[in-house]
Amino acid sequence: MSKLLVVGSVAIDSIKTPFGKRERSLGGSATHFSVSASFFTEVGVVAVVGGDFTSEDEAVFHQRKIDTSGLERVKDGKTFFWAGEYSFDLNTAHTLDTQLNVFGDFKPSLSPEAANAPFLFLGNIQPTLQREVRAQSKAKFVAMDTMNLWIDIARDELLKTIAEVDALIINDAEARQLAQESNLIKAAKAILKMGPKMLLVKRGEYGAAFFSNDTYFATPAFPVEDVADPTGAGDSFAGGFMGYLAQQEHVDDKAVRRAIIYGSVMASFNVEQFSCDRLRDLTHDDIMHRIHRFSEFTHFDLYPNFPANSKPGQKTAFAQVK
Amino acid sequence: MSKLLVVGSVAIDSIKTPFGKRERSLGGSATHFSVSASFFTEVGVVAVVGGDFTSEDEAVFHQRKIDTSGLERVKDGKTFFWAGEYSFDLNTAHTLDTQLNVFGDFKPSLSPEAANAPFLFLGNIQPTLQREVRAQSKAKFVAMDTMNLWIDIARDELLKTIAEVDALIINDAEARQLAQESNLIKAAKAILKMGPKMLLVKRGEYGAAFFSNDTYFATPAFPVEDVADPTGAGDSFAGGFMGYLAQQEHVDDKAVRRAIIYGSVMASFNVEQFSCDRLRDLTHDDIMHRIHRFSEFTHFDLYPNFPANSKPGQKTAFAQVK
Repeated sequence: MSKLLVVGSVAIDSIKTPFGKRERSLGGSATHFSVSASFFTEVGVVAVVGGDFTSEDEAVFHQRKIDTSGLERVKDGKTFFWAGEYSFDLNTAHTLDTQLNVFGDFKPSLSPEAANAPFLFLGNIQPTLQREVRAQSKAKFVAMDTMNLWIDIARDELLKTIAEVDALIINDAEARQLAQESNLIKAAKAILKMGPKMLLVKRGEYGAAFFSNDTYFATPAFPVEDVADPTGAGDSFAGGFMGYLAQQEHVDDKAVRRAIIYGSVMASFNVEQFSCDRLRDLTHDDIMHRIHRFSEFTHFDLYPNFPANSKPGQKTAFAQVK
Repeated sequence: MSKLLVVGSVAIDSIKTPFGKRERSLGGSATHFSVSASFFTEVGVVAVVGGDFTSEDEAVFHQRKIDTSGLERVKDGKTFFWAGEYSFDLNTAHTLDTQLNVFGDFKPSLSPEAANAPFLFLGNIQPTLQREVRAQSKAKFVAMDTMNLWIDIARDELLKTIAEVDALIINDAEARQLAQESNLIKAAKAILKMGPKMLLVKRGEYGAAFFSNDTYFATPAFPVEDVADPTGAGDSFAGGFMGYLAQQEHVDDKAVRRAIIYGSVMASFNVEQFSCDRLRDLTHDDIMHRIHRFSEFTHFDLYPNFPANSKPGQKTAFAQVK
């Protein structure tokens, strides 16, 4: 049985970056999320595909032992299609074409088994659909993503959905837009008042910041020298985060912090090749090598000879204020 | 005798933000830098001011016991003036007016004592001047700042100057522009080939990243909820960084990492009020409180029960790759 269920899009992408081009790239939030999460736990995917979804596409899921029994197939329809282009800085995707196709009529329905998955991720789909899935699920921990489009055109529906989840995972522009507040700390406080217990803010190459009523955590990103395609970075981040939590089964502050580091590492792999090409063939050692490097490049000791119990005000190697 | 010398601008700023306005704000790179650094070590300032520089302005330096014997006074001239406005996101300053005034003829000359300061910071001034100061100094550790203007109009001079310093401290847009490379990791490698042993990249609200041939370190910023005026954030960051290193006297990887954290904390105070108003009255406890919070909000353990000797490949709480 899946420990982690994801509802979202499976897409065929056409992607152009300054460093390459791929006409037909398997993508979508549920794809990047589930492949990433599959390294940590048993994952099931709920999405819809058309007749153009090939056995080669499906093999990506099967190779990672992802449960595709929730993958609805519309033989006479076409899979959700997105064409995008990234400019030189790779930060912003310019959408060239979006064809909803079978995704336009997507009405996700959870099987009894899927409804029992203890962890649920609501990928970036229409907020009303997200809420319908939430209502069907018995998950004990639910996280969701969203995007600027829904904040713009479906704000009320979105707010209802946000109020019903444990964690909101969005990027920093979305957080500012949602809270209508440019300062991220203030925006986060406003968003936590909307209902979720946790807010995880994705900052792309700058890392991530986590907010709850009890804690704040921030981390830089894993440094990536060769970014081939940023598509799916946020979903693979969320996949690593949720996958790790589902594996640990309980969600506390320490597990959340580790989960963010795992998510960051998975995102760093995701962007190194098109689609899920880099993620698919990762080994345990590949992942753990970056996890250990993460620990090294973020580590600092407060004092030359770190006294474990030093407290503010104590005399230390720090200069006395003159 | 000063352990740390800074050469740069002392300015009168006129600043407007969405949250306030100050017609006459004491500013300039040397001002923010020296006030910040003064909490860690003995600082001397080399700069030029006009007849409009008041005893109240000077008291800011004296209060912090900053050596102003290198402050050249041109009684019949006017102090460097900058007027700027920040838009809602506070990230970008829009220059409304720049009057070089006495700064236009600034020819910094170091006294024998100033030349002996073991640490030197070359604030953002014309790169040829920076190099002339470098040549006069016997400092064992020299860092410098620069800006997009000099990268644009004085690239060759700038490259000569960069080749002669130990550390370059610039923001990420400048790093990308200098290296003509959008990927920051690649840009950093290219910049290290220009001569400096260290590159410290300021990322504003996202923190900082440090590069040398041996090490990489990255940190998020200290979260600031109420930003009154971002002016001088980078210089107060550099001041905390250099001030801490000058106090420790030796520059190694561990000291550099701590210095970056101290610099980040000083910058977080700097932006909370106009000019150096917030920095001026800090106490040891104020600073150490944020230093300890920094340690808390960036901390994570790799494993639920962190085994100190765990290595990649070892069996851990991490999921086996299926």
